[in-house]
Amino acid sequence: MSDKTVNRRAFMTAAGLAGAAVATGARAQTPDPLITEVQPWNKQLGDGVQANPYGSPSKFEKHVVRRDVEWLTVSRESSVNFTPLHELDGIITPSGLCFERHHGGVAEIEPGKHRLMIHGLVDKPLVYTMDDLKRFPGRINRAYFLECAANSGMEWKGAQLNGCQFTHGMVHNVWYAGLPLKALLDQAGVKTNGKWLLAEGADSAGMTRSIPIDKAMKDCMVAWNMNGEALRPEQGYPLRLVVPGWEGNMWVKWLRRLEIGDQPWHHREETSKYTDLLADGRSRRFTWIMDAKSVVTNPSPQAPLRAKGPNVLTGLAWSGRGAIKRVDVSLDGGRNWTTARIEGPVLPLSLTRFYLDFDWDGRELLVQSRAMDDTGYVQPTKSELRAVRGVNSIYHNNGIQTWLVRGDGETENVEIS
Amino acid sequence: MSDKTVNRRAFMTAAGLAGAAVATGARAQTPDPLITEVQPWNKQLGDGVQANPYGSPSKFEKHVVRRDVEWLTVSRESSVNFTPLHELDGIITPSGLCFERHHGGVAEIEPGKHRLMIHGLVDKPLVYTMDDLKRFPGRINRAYFLECAANSGMEWKGAQLNGCQFTHGMVHNVWYAGLPLKALLDQAGVKTNGKWLLAEGADSAGMTRSIPIDKAMKDCMVAWNMNGEALRPEQGYPLRLVVPGWEGNMWVKWLRRLEIGDQPWHHREETSKYTDLLADGRSRRFTWIMDAKSVVTNPSPQAPLRAKGPNVLTGLAWSGRGAIKRVDVSLDGGRNWTTARIEGPVLPLSLTRFYLDFDWDGRELLVQSRAMDDTGYVQPTKSELRAVRGVNSIYHNNGIQTWLVRGDGETENVEIS
Repeated sequence: MSDKTVNRRAFMTAAGLAGAAVATGARAQTPDPLITEVQPWNKQLGDGVQANPYGSPSKFEKHVVRRDVEWLTVSRESSVNFTPLHELDGIITPSGLCFERHHGGVAEIEPGKHRLMIHGLVDKPLVYTMDDLKRFPGRINRAYFLECAANSGMEWKGAQLNGCQFTHGMVHNVWYAGLPLKALLDQAGVKTNGKWLLAEGADSAGMTRSIPIDKAMKDCMVAWNMNGEALRPEQGYPLRLVVPGWEGNMWVKWLRRLEIGDQPWHHREETSKYTDLLADGRSRRFTWIMDAKSVVTNPSPQAPLRAKGPNVLTGLAWSGRGAIKRVDVSLDGGRNWTTARIEGPVLPLSLTRFYLDFDWDGRELLVQSRAMDDTGYVQPTKSELRAVRGVNSIYHNNGIQTWLVRGDGETENVEIS
Repeated sequence: MSDKTVNRRAFMTAAGLAGAAVATGARAQTPDPLITEVQPWNKQLGDGVQANPYGSPSKFEKHVVRRDVEWLTVSRESSVNFTPLHELDGIITPSGLCFERHHGGVAEIEPGKHRLMIHGLVDKPLVYTMDDLKRFPGRINRAYFLECAANSGMEWKGAQLNGCQFTHGMVHNVWYAGLPLKALLDQAGVKTNGKWLLAEGADSAGMTRSIPIDKAMKDCMVAWNMNGEALRPEQGYPLRLVVPGWEGNMWVKWLRRLEIGDQPWHHREETSKYTDLLADGRSRRFTWIMDAKSVVTNPSPQAPLRAKGPNVLTGLAWSGRGAIKRVDVSLDGGRNWTTARIEGPVLPLSLTRFYLDFDWDGRELLVQSRAMDDTGYVQPTKSELRAVRGVNSIYHNNGIQTWLVRGDGETENVEIS
């Protein structure tokens, strides 16, 4: 009996299915031509392995891309796009879908010509080639989230952007391989008065940020590998700094220089930018840590509910202070909360996936999620945040997000009082 | 002080570096023009975010691709390529680099027209759309290795293929999201005499395999998501079976049908193929579990040693019976063993990364790795395997691999007696 015969027997059996529809999603039409008739892909030979030595997604997934917002992507000097969180699952962000934020476009660096220099308040200034780094003892690999400080930044003044890709899509979660920064700093020998580190990129923006030496020594990495392969160009190829739990702007891409000093440098990206303007005109500075946050990715404006009955709500939670301990979900705008099911690995300083299986009867929902981390910190409401910080900042908005699901399933970004 | 000024100051400082070369890989030339001169990427604006909505690797990484072997890739009816293990790090295989093995080419399936049917010895035959599955309660996400039963199969008769991509590259490690198969089978209601499951693909090969119901109920998944995004076409888009720890051929791609029966089906892929021909002419059958195995990916024939002094040896270990407990490495063909440093997550039925930092004085090496899993199983030598199984099989070769590193660093696949 050939495989084809088996197939046909299956189709015949399927044609006999009747009344198999059940509440939890399975159904059978009688007869369902998609079961009873042989489909083209079952009759025609497909491409062999030589068609695509480096693979790409299905042509039916062309809508799953990073997207920009026209008025935010004004030039190559300053551009940003967003991770399509509502199309993803699990905790790893595919490298091709990790959001981008550039201050001088994507540097195209020949790795053989890239150097990393350590100098300043050190015993021995050092220069490393990429080969040097790959031969250095103590390589590690770790998963960390990276969130732009401005993620959800447009939402300070109220619901603005209609889709979690745009409200929360400046975050990604990647597995890095590289070296603990401490290993290199120890080789250079940081002097006792070396209290700060300046990291500089080799792109045309020459991005620089000041980082306290304690953080640099604790868990920062220099990484050349993401999600198994070389860093992508837009993520800093061939070398980036990893600053776990801290705002993305500090994770200097195309990393070429580390200077040790006794005080911060007060450069552009830590004075006029990446500081939090308060209601009284003062600014919070050096607000590096990304506080606990979460978002429901499905349903959301780009992923409305399609049917009544069983549905799966899912989303992501993260904290720059540690591991996610619990995520609660509300379907009525915060009146009642249900603890979501955390699924997959719970790693510190990494995205964490949660699910809530629920039945939808067609009534309007106000969907929210609230993350708690292992320090006891609870994600605040937007109102609580605004009471303390005003609405002038574009940074560090970790307030609870609300989606309104209408009776027809369409979903939008709303504020609730 | 503008960023540009800071950059120039950095270059001036760098020009003063002298004598910074150290044993562990750092070095400075005096002056190093790559430090003292501004490089093109530091002067020119790069592409903005709109250039690449779905990203791709650097143009300097074009050599990092799946590769086939001409005489193994004879037609679209039967083709295979291999994961470039020597170019990867960490434990996750990028989706675009996961090896492929097709029996009828890559099916190009329109997800809205895909159906999964469950029938046979069940109370209620059921048909699911992709939307049904995505609304089904109990979604999970898990990382598992998939290894083709024929991985290293050419090596039974002796060292054949020169590169770990070709000897061991029919393995990948992916994070899946989907449903426990048990959830669907429970909905259909498996009858008490239902002891076996037939899984069938919707490709033109109509691939089928028989799976014991206990395994199906224990940890199998139906998955639609890999490494965060939709399954790639060549990995079964829109739906594949995940059979953790068992040979890859059973992980039916383009999964469309699950039939419950009271005995195995004895189809082509479990009789004339995927059975292990022994020396006496008999065949082992239903040898589903992939035993513990490991390989040193660097150094290896495609990744020779480039310099004396500090070097990083790295590789992968896995077991279809559980988690990796320990990996030992030998540099002298198995006379002396050193326990390698396992780094990153140790998950059951998942690839596990190990490293060994070592100094190379230029002498010839015979590099080996030996995996031990948490059942106490120790990866055997090829000689031990051949003594029991002969050399006629092309399947289930998990013997210890040997690389000869010559004095000039060039590395080749060898047998040792």
